[in-house]
Amino acid sequence: MSKTFETLQPYLDKAMAFQTARNLFEWDDQTVAPFEAADYTSKVVGIISDEYMKCLINDDVRKLIKKLSEEKEQDELTDKEKAIIKELNKTYEQLESIPPEEYRAFNELALVSNRAWTKAKKDNNYEYFAPYLKKIIEYKKKFAGYRAKKNQDPYEVLLGDFEECFGIKELDVFFDKIKSEIVPLLKQISKKSDTIDKSYNFLKYDVNKQKAFCKYLSGYLGFDFNRGVIAESAHPFTLDLHNHDVRITNNYKENNLESAMFSIIHETGHALYEMNIDDSLTQTPVGSGTSMGMHESQSRLFENIIGRSEAFWAPIYSKLVETYPENLKNISLEHFLKGINKAEPSLIRTEADELSYPLHVIIRYEIEKAIFAGDADVDKLPELWNKKYQEYLGLTPTNDAEGILQDIHWSYGEFGYFPSYAIGSAISSQLYAKIKEVMPVDEYLKEGNITPIREFLRDSIHKYGATKNTNQILKDITGEEFNADYYVEYLKEKYESLYSL
Amino acid sequence: MSKTFETLQPYLDKAMAFQTARNLFEWDDQTVAPFEAADYTSKVVGIISDEYMKCLINDDVRKLIKKLSEEKEQDELTDKEKAIIKELNKTYEQLESIPPEEYRAFNELALVSNRAWTKAKKDNNYEYFAPYLKKIIEYKKKFAGYRAKKNQDPYEVLLGDFEECFGIKELDVFFDKIKSEIVPLLKQISKKSDTIDKSYNFLKYDVNKQKAFCKYLSGYLGFDFNRGVIAESAHPFTLDLHNHDVRITNNYKENNLESAMFSIIHETGHALYEMNIDDSLTQTPVGSGTSMGMHESQSRLFENIIGRSEAFWAPIYSKLVETYPENLKNISLEHFLKGINKAEPSLIRTEADELSYPLHVIIRYEIEKAIFAGDADVDKLPELWNKKYQEYLGLTPTNDAEGILQDIHWSYGEFGYFPSYAIGSAISSQLYAKIKEVMPVDEYLKEGNITPIREFLRDSIHKYGATKNTNQILKDITGEEFNADYYVEYLKEKYESLYSL
Repeated sequence: MSKTFETLQPYLDKAMAFQTARNLFEWDDQTVAPFEAADYTSKVVGIISDEYMKCLINDDVRKLIKKLSEEKEQDELTDKEKAIIKELNKTYEQLESIPPEEYRAFNELALVSNRAWTKAKKDNNYEYFAPYLKKIIEYKKKFAGYRAKKNQDPYEVLLGDFEECFGIKELDVFFDKIKSEIVPLLKQISKKSDTIDKSYNFLKYDVNKQKAFCKYLSGYLGFDFNRGVIAESAHPFTLDLHNHDVRITNNYKENNLESAMFSIIHETGHALYEMNIDDSLTQTPVGSGTSMGMHESQSRLFENIIGRSEAFWAPIYSKLVETYPENLKNISLEHFLKGINKAEPSLIRTEADELSYPLHVIIRYEIEKAIFAGDADVDKLPELWNKKYQEYLGLTPTNDAEGILQDIHWSYGEFGYFPSYAIGSAISSQLYAKIKEVMPVDEYLKEGNITPIREFLRDSIHKYGATKNTNQILKDITGEEFNADYYVEYLKEKYESLYSL
Repeated sequence: MSKTFETLQPYLDKAMAFQTARNLFEWDDQTVAPFEAADYTSKVVGIISDEYMKCLINDDVRKLIKKLSEEKEQDELTDKEKAIIKELNKTYEQLESIPPEEYRAFNELALVSNRAWTKAKKDNNYEYFAPYLKKIIEYKKKFAGYRAKKNQDPYEVLLGDFEECFGIKELDVFFDKIKSEIVPLLKQISKKSDTIDKSYNFLKYDVNKQKAFCKYLSGYLGFDFNRGVIAESAHPFTLDLHNHDVRITNNYKENNLESAMFSIIHETGHALYEMNIDDSLTQTPVGSGTSMGMHESQSRLFENIIGRSEAFWAPIYSKLVETYPENLKNISLEHFLKGINKAEPSLIRTEADELSYPLHVIIRYEIEKAIFAGDADVDKLPELWNKKYQEYLGLTPTNDAEGILQDIHWSYGEFGYFPSYAIGSAISSQLYAKIKEVMPVDEYLKEGNITPIREFLRDSIHKYGATKNTNQILKDITGEEFNADYYVEYLKEKYESLYSL
């Protein structure tokens, strides 16, 4: 082992410990902590966050990283160590150029702004939120400006934080393709939406039975309950402390069968990624999934491509019917498959179907791009939002709560994140095309055998953690970098057939 | 505020944050964490524990505490600050005299020894555990030796860690009194144990109903669910992150009605103490209950004196009967009260009734005292244990698992802790005598009105945290320091009446 790297190790270990503690507080806050604990606990989390920053961003570590980035030292490093140094350079690039007092002021603003958003959404009052949003945007522009290379668009900087392989150029190409293909397709389908009956989905479904069935689904896909747990929270999410402790939450709605089922499949996709990270990488800076887009590709592969397929449900649908005979005994597998794949333009992104989902993302991407290019007046965002919803989805929100205020992300400054959702869907199609090539995946699914798929993902994606980036992974698996054609093709084929177009 | 104290504050805040994180990991480990997480998570907890020690035990803090302990500085301090400095001097006295490498070696040994105890208890094999116990005792003797004042018994040092007001002299007097009064009383009663029928307690009691009833009981006593939660774990315990986040666990047994009910009452007693600590003290070194004995007095006051009284059950017993009509409809309140107060010598401390409980403690106290005085051969502890059980309880364990191996404490070096349990019971009697003097407590209980009792405890005990010690609190409330007569009197009166002696 490199002597210099050895000197760095204790700093990394400490940072890892503080980060893990923060994750545990986050988990606890979302799942267990009592209502009035927040003010006191946030003091604790604030101190631990400060310690995390202090032990990672300081002169000693700066010098070590600089030295370890030099060619001579690099030659002594293992691939894992090189990846760690690359990751640390990224962290330094993200954090170091921002004056600490501005960073702290921004974090305080983000908290207040998030609260303002909560109130504004509740009261359906965008004017109340707009001044906070303006300040948030100002900070994000300023921070991106500090970090931007010459002539670089600030939005480009923000996009890179979530997915280093995708800048504005790549996303413009990707989203133009989606728009030109999917918008017309969705318009055709929306005329035929009545041809699929989905009323069975909104009957009464006992929540305890939902929990049991969701747990079954998660285990069926390979979630290891010796290394993970499932709990409840307001919104489903996945969080890990390390690869031996990966946690999912779910949320159950009595009058919706699908909601919790597809959430658990989605989160299990995320969880399998983290559970399968190699033991040698977990608890290091490259010990998690490589990007938001790649992570979403795993959750969406399971949720949509596998989880909404006939082959997947063929061996287990009867178990679902047995769980709810009163509601499902007259719903055939064929009927159920149509129901879970029904597409229909809607206003809320998180409830959107697989086909219309990317259009929700595009709207946010285009607005974010306009904001950072200085082409959008923050006071007029609701109009811009509504115009785009009408254009791409044929619908106009009746109020801002279901329009411009629907997502939490911007309230605390998360710009550049939304594209990952669509990138994830597209990657999952590209991956699945390859999977179908290398194994009889439908046969496996019909036998209830998920193992070959899971092992393929583990060995070609998961185990590498963040030591390879999205395009490197895709190239090693499929021979080519990101290619959105698979996604468009998949959607067209699936939905043209489903709606007999 | 004193300038010097101000300089100390950031160290205290950091130590508090690390300690809170450790508590959360502990909670999580006992209630949620998946089975295989332990090895990886313990690395995290180890680092955080090290950071806790480093930020508290270092030259800067040492100098500050020394300075703040001087008369001139003390004059500038508030009572709270003085109490904090006193507490920190105690921490320094406990930790600083022990060479760090020995402390670390001991902590590693404690982990291994604890595992050895688990195995030994499972296999009923004391010989397997004895070598570990010997090493543990050696370390504890050595550590106590480092800290002992001239001619001070090492066991005295250990006792002081849990209860500064009780040394060997005080405990000898206390326990001699108990022995001379309770041993004969229990012998009389054990002849009449068949006069109380308790078979109803061991019927089948639906666990979900138990959970709901226990939650009701906890809320009835004043547990604030906005500032606390109840979860499940193998053994019930109470843990807090601060006064706005106090957590209880419980454990439910299908064939035992009492077990979970009295556990939740007991833990609620602990929880109320922590919830009622003043806001100005929480998250400081004096922000928890003042001693183990005082803490146990609160749990036992609710569990035994209040929780097993007629006045307490009179307004709510019908609710319990309605919960389990199939088992309880023919069990009168009078019958139930006899059942929950039935006394009977038994072998397991944690399952002992209120009367025989202190005898279990005395046996451990006498053995610990003998160990540290060098009067006990560790290999022969089982014989010593069994002899004492025969002498005080009239029973002999049939094996070491239900004898010398039954408690976890010694396996990781917790010597001097057991007396707190009995001290707590005695304090609760002394307190209750005063409570009866100052309010019509039985009337309140019969009205289902717990508030006056809870407010009395809050205002005279809880809110002070650790700024007053046990005897100061007792003196301020009752006019005298600890006095075991109330306890003996309470037990004699109660049990002589119950068994018509």
